[in-house]
Amino acid sequence: MRATTGRGFLFVPGPTNIPDRVQRAMVVAMEDHRSSKFPDLSTSVLSDLKKVFKTETGQVFIFPSSGTGAWEAALTNTLSPGDKVLASRFGQFSHLWIDMAQRLGFDVQILDVEWGEGVPVERTEEILRADTQHEIKGILACHNETATGVTSDIAALRKAMDDAAHPALLMVDAVSSLASIDFRMDEWRVDLAVSGSQKGLMLPAGLGILGVSPKALEATQSATSRRCYFDLADMIATNPGGYFPYTPALPMLYGLREALDIIFEEGLDEIFARHHYLAEGVRAAVTEGWQLELCAKEPKWYSDTVSAVMVPEHINGAHVIDVAFRRYNLALGAGLSKVAGKLFRIGHLGDLNELMLMGAIAGAEMAMLDVGIEVVPGSGVAAASNYWRSHDPVPKRRVSREEQFYEAHSTGSVQG
Amino acid sequence: MRATTGRGFLFVPGPTNIPDRVQRAMVVAMEDHRSSKFPDLSTSVLSDLKKVFKTETGQVFIFPSSGTGAWEAALTNTLSPGDKVLASRFGQFSHLWIDMAQRLGFDVQILDVEWGEGVPVERTEEILRADTQHEIKGILACHNETATGVTSDIAALRKAMDDAAHPALLMVDAVSSLASIDFRMDEWRVDLAVSGSQKGLMLPAGLGILGVSPKALEATQSATSRRCYFDLADMIATNPGGYFPYTPALPMLYGLREALDIIFEEGLDEIFARHHYLAEGVRAAVTEGWQLELCAKEPKWYSDTVSAVMVPEHINGAHVIDVAFRRYNLALGAGLSKVAGKLFRIGHLGDLNELMLMGAIAGAEMAMLDVGIEVVPGSGVAAASNYWRSHDPVPKRRVSREEQFYEAHSTGSVQG
Amino acid sequence: MRATTGRGFLFVPGPTNIPDRVQRAMVVAMEDHRSSKFPDLSTSVLSDLKKVFKTETGQVFIFPSSGTGAWEAALTNTLSPGDKVLASRFGQFSHLWIDMAQRLGFDVQILDVEWGEGVPVERTEEILRADTQHEIKGILACHNETATGVTSDIAALRKAMDDAAHPALLMVDAVSSLASIDFRMDEWRVDLAVSGSQKGLMLPAGLGILGVSPKALEATQSATSRRCYFDLADMIATNPGGYFPYTPALPMLYGLREALDIIFEEGLDEIFARHHYLAEGVRAAVTEGWQLELCAKEPKWYSDTVSAVMVPEHINGAHVIDVAFRRYNLALGAGLSKVAGKLFRIGHLGDLNELMLMGAIAGAEMAMLDVGIEVVPGSGVAAASNYWRSHDPVPKRRVSREEQFYEAHSTGSVQG
Amino acid sequence: MRATTGRGFLFVPGPTNIPDRVQRAMVVAMEDHRSSKFPDLSTSVLSDLKKVFKTETGQVFIFPSSGTGAWEAALTNTLSPGDKVLASRFGQFSHLWIDMAQRLGFDVQILDVEWGEGVPVERTEEILRADTQHEIKGILACHNETATGVTSDIAALRKAMDDAAHPALLMVDAVSSLASIDFRMDEWRVDLAVSGSQKGLMLPAGLGILGVSPKALEATQSATSRRCYFDLADMIATNPGGYFPYTPALPMLYGLREALDIIFEEGLDEIFARHHYLAEGVRAAVTEGWQLELCAKEPKWYSDTVSAVMVPEHINGAHVIDVAFRRYNLALGAGLSKVAGKLFRIGHLGDLNELMLMGAIAGAEMAMLDVGIEVVPGSGVAAASNYWRSHDPVPKRRVSREEQFYEAHSTGSVQG
Repeated sequence: MRATTGRGFLFVPGPTNIPDRVQRAMVVAMEDHRSSKFPDLSTSVLSDLKKVFKTETGQVFIFPSSGTGAWEAALTNTLSPGDKVLASRFGQFSHLWIDMAQRLGFDVQILDVEWGEGVPVERTEEILRADTQHEIKGILACHNETATGVTSDIAALRKAMDDAAHPALLMVDAVSSLASIDFRMDEWRVDLAVSGSQKGLMLPAGLGILGVSPKALEATQSATSRRCYFDLADMIATNPGGYFPYTPALPMLYGLREALDIIFEEGLDEIFARHHYLAEGVRAAVTEGWQLELCAKEPKWYSDTVSAVMVPEHINGAHVIDVAFRRYNLALGAGLSKVAGKLFRIGHLGDLNELMLMGAIAGAEMAMLDVGIEVVPGSGVAAASNYWRSHDPVPKRRVSREEQFYEAHSTGSVQG
Repeated sequence: MRATTGRGFLFVPGPTNIPDRVQRAMVVAMEDHRSSKFPDLSTSVLSDLKKVFKTETGQVFIFPSSGTGAWEAALTNTLSPGDKVLASRFGQFSHLWIDMAQRLGFDVQILDVEWGEGVPVERTEEILRADTQHEIKGILACHNETATGVTSDIAALRKAMDDAAHPALLMVDAVSSLASIDFRMDEWRVDLAVSGSQKGLMLPAGLGILGVSPKALEATQSATSRRCYFDLADMIATNPGGYFPYTPALPMLYGLREALDIIFEEGLDEIFARHHYLAEGVRAAVTEGWQLELCAKEPKWYSDTVSAVMVPEHINGAHVIDVAFRRYNLALGAGLSKVAGKLFRIGHLGDLNELMLMGAIAGAEMAMLDVGIEVVPGSGVAAASNYWRSHDPVPKRRVSREEQFYEAHSTGSVQG
Repeated sequence: MRATTGRGFLFVPGPTNIPDRVQRAMVVAMEDHRSSKFPDLSTSVLSDLKKVFKTETGQVFIFPSSGTGAWEAALTNTLSPGDKVLASRFGQFSHLWIDMAQRLGFDVQILDVEWGEGVPVERTEEILRADTQHEIKGILACHNETATGVTSDIAALRKAMDDAAHPALLMVDAVSSLASIDFRMDEWRVDLAVSGSQKGLMLPAGLGILGVSPKALEATQSATSRRCYFDLADMIATNPGGYFPYTPALPMLYGLREALDIIFEEGLDEIFARHHYLAEGVRAAVTEGWQLELCAKEPKWYSDTVSAVMVPEHINGAHVIDVAFRRYNLALGAGLSKVAGKLFRIGHLGDLNELMLMGAIAGAEMAMLDVGIEVVPGSGVAAASNYWRSHDPVPKRRVSREEQFYEAHSTGSVQG
Repeated sequence: MRATTGRGFLFVPGPTNIPDRVQRAMVVAMEDHRSSKFPDLSTSVLSDLKKVFKTETGQVFIFPSSGTGAWEAALTNTLSPGDKVLASRFGQFSHLWIDMAQRLGFDVQILDVEWGEGVPVERTEEILRADTQHEIKGILACHNETATGVTSDIAALRKAMDDAAHPALLMVDAVSSLASIDFRMDEWRVDLAVSGSQKGLMLPAGLGILGVSPKALEATQSATSRRCYFDLADMIATNPGGYFPYTPALPMLYGLREALDIIFEEGLDEIFARHHYLAEGVRAAVTEGWQLELCAKEPKWYSDTVSAVMVPEHINGAHVIDVAFRRYNLALGAGLSKVAGKLFRIGHLGDLNELMLMGAIAGAEMAMLDVGIEVVPGSGVAAASNYWRSHDPVPKRRVSREEQFYEAHSTGSVQG
């Protein structure tokens, strides 16, 4: 690598950058997880996670695992061997969940969708209406497909299920949306909401997080899939007292406590607005600046947490990524599976601000130029600058530029 | 709690105390786990873990999970539904593994043994000899039963299996023995060695670690148990290149790298000798000093990582633990299940030294006195002091006390 | 060294053990010390330090230096070349301040006192009465002589000055007493109170801290000693706005902020009571347990932050210290200058609790036995145990032992 | 402030960004600075600092102080009251050292130079030639004037002194040049080289560092200025054994040890080349991109560690800084004293890379646009990009772009 000095620029869509406060909070001496003091920590994070999922009726569980483990927990706790589930596939992560369901012995009806689009609500509704015997026990939906930068409309999916009067469980992968893109577990009546620690929660990987509705909890009673490590029953038996069935990952829980504090200090809606504002700047850089296309086919699919940038046909996207990493210490996401080589991805979720993204935009531009993509130098930064300078992260708190100028002016004297 | 100042004394048998070097090593910025640089880290820890298991022929796998997850991985990757396994039960942890095997659908033949003893080698051999059809596919053995402070003789168990010419897989729980008590995966031909990060490896909980023999790897081909998160196949497909099937817990891997460095700097055999030396001091305090009994029935069962101390009949061991924690900031292990209230446990594994244990011994003594156990004040410390002053942690490096005195003398002048 | 595993036991009387909270608080990214945000930090610590000095009328200054620098600041800001000061000498640190005053060009009248005693109030008063021309401009007093474990009576010294109606500035070295032993700057009308970060403030060395009375501030106007780095004038010009004349040691300021929070959470008076309680336990170990003598001649001189333990005549105290450090990873303080070899010192200030001290007591005992001092094994721990079990750190919050038992009992069930 | 999320961008010319390795290294438990183990650390840093100063004959001293303290140590240890020194003034920091010398009682002959230029070598030589009585005892030169972004030619100054055959001590302020811009203490026969920890050494402020030539060491014998805290004599008495006259700032020393390792791993000459390469990119952004002027009058004065950017006449530079800080979380340096409001400064020293600077350039541009400076959006980034893409940080290791492409290509497959 060319430059090993300075900080790396991490713009894969997870793991995300850890805030210093969270980093510090994880530097803890070990302690007895069965002590009378421990529940202070555990019950507070379990309870506060519910706010992040926007659920009051549901319950949230934490597993020492990656998000993949929470996928498995969602399936095995609520389904029995051979159960039929319906799932749409439009990217590597929606694919992998389907693959898992098949390997765990479920009968998956797959709706293949062009990569760049999201959950096909109308087709789903048709299938559900046709399933008059209610053989479909669960619907798997990927809220934010990290591989293509596509966000699906879960509210519309729920409406389609309701319109079809179908009782299947709604299982949503919220790994790269939770705490970044609006997610409303109760309002959308999501039954199983799968997430992990290393995205919007701004922690390292290591916690699989699962939101479970009362209806899904009830389903666990009759689900006969073999399970033990991910069995909710053990959690249900111990969590209320503040304990876990096995030794928890202590630094992660302390980090989660701090991350939740940070989230509530900023406010969930402010976080969603900020992600949208930063994403819009990135999209301006891509489409107005570089004159390139996004993988997401239409604005309604645009993800506020990750943008997949299509490279010209004669170029291998993997080269952009490799040069970015080796020459400029910039980590971009690769095209996966069907779109391998056709795109690179810029993650813009978690603890970020405009200038961090400016570094990423400038770096991606340099790497593209290095491998022969003829973008105009500075064009991406200029477009993002124009967007961010003329918009505010949280619209409702908007202050006029003139006011800001005078605000700035009045304190200029401290600089000395 | 009385005193909240100062450091807590953590003497549960896991999680153990994290060395400062490991603590520091875990303070890392996130990075792309799919970068071209990442395999430097992952392949080095996977390879070095093999040395800790003392295996050259086997392979080691790391899961983002607790040790419980590695139990599950051992069973589901090598057994098929309904397979028969043989397991002896003599404490809460040997019990829990049996419970898991039953819940996962295996047919467990249980050998109940008095708590305080370990794996009954002769009875096991008899059963194996009788199993002429080789219906028993696996033998589950808990190397070190954390609940009672008992270490079993795995070499003898292997010999019994060999003498019975039985082909079952040997599955060993090495959670609280690995890197603390001698464990020889290749020599004992252990097929599945289960461990976790939060004991002898001196890390927080969060990594389930599994050593797998070639024979066990072969068994994964035909084992039909449903599995996905813990499926070795995904690991086998990605590990050789230095990658994982899902986002790894980065700080834990960096911490593991440092912990392995520390382990090899001290030397595995030196670590085992140190654990024995420290354990002998604790046992001197218990039996010679306090005149109390250990749960382990005979010296051959004594564990060098945890001592379970029987309290007098009229006393509830939980009171000792509670007073120790609340008044003296000392965390001791509780009696679990059958032995609840009858004992308290002192963990003495991981990153420890004589004076840390002196604090624990003095604190346990004060707590015992507070709840009415009539031990002689100072007696535990005196007995441990006598043992440690007259023995050396690593016998082969023995230096006479006289030499040490003059060594000390010659450098005394720097003190000033 | 014998054991390099586990935590070292640090019982020199400074630097003291850093609480984890302070350790974490110091892990900060650098920032602009001239930004509009910086004064939030700087003004809060400068203001809160006044509470620690118990002054409302005085002002506190922070220098990037050791405590020695604050000694120099006290002298050069208030005295002119050739000025006469009166100082008593009864240990290495009272000696060093005198030495500094001489080297900086002041005329020091020295009152030599037997090491083991403190400021001779009556002799001082006599001298002050005799100084009818008020040639003596300052009186230097060491509140807590760290070398001998002796605390002087500053209130009595102030009374003597008042009784003699002498206008000299009262300059007090509070390095090893501030935030550990009661210190009342306003009530005792201390004019210059010198301290540092690495003792009761529980930080690393690196901050020289100086409390200055209005009278001393006035004296700075006419004092002609050459000074620049330690010139209060530059601080007075910039501190009110929240800035410093030169780049401050940022992590130290963040650590100080956290240390102050910890101090106010516990309460200053509770801190003093705890230090007394812990010191009494140590003294019980020394005198009742080991049957050894303290350097401090009488109980009225006993220091609650450090105990100097006299070793038998035929033994070199440096050997005890060396064996303790090399064999047991225990750092004790050495005898300095006049008392070199005659004693070793146990620091008991800062972030400590009973069991940490138990480790130190047990370790000192083992080292003494190793070098041939015939103390009874376990005797020190037994004596300290008896004291601590029958006393409470903060008397006013006393709870009966019976109550504690039942309190413990009622929560015993969480242990599992 | 607008955005409090994400990392701040610190581009004041000190304190600089702390590398993670250094940050980690400073998280240490306190230890006894008088132990037999401590000299391992202290002697290694004292010895290795000599390499950074490029001196073999000189000695380096570390004070717990800011760099200002090292200025004072240089003056008071080698001069006597009333001694005459010659100093040129061309910025706030050269001014402050002169001010200090005056306050400490020395007779400073001041050479005022236009701000934007450096040490006037010819005028200096003339004055030295005229000083036939050798009344001038020292020459104060600021190697890198941080306030204006001007680097002086110390080699030429030494030659002028030699040509004038003048024996004065050569005292150089290397605070913002050491370990960033080539500095050759022995070759240039610098007698006193003053530095601090918070610039090229990549540490927090808190260490004053002083390189002293044998000639200067000899001068300390006869220098009668009053000094104690900064007296080299105490250091000379204790440093050789590995000790300090007073409690050292332990985390800083551990951090320094790691910083030195990082420096030697990269190589001093490579560090200088990298600083030049990064500085050239910034200068391209300023002059080619933004079409603005630097404060430094000519390329020969250009500093590789800080660039002072002149703002248009009708604009107050403080506004740029304020908006940058409050809206974009970017800390820029202010114009000081004579140039207050006329410029803003971008520090580009220490642990940096291209993309960090891209963030700073983009942020400064946005802030300039916000306050009405009509730069072309993206122009700064484009100019820097052009420079960095067509140059290499360390010329001698130059690899062709084509080679890099294929290098990238060959490993592209790992991205997945």
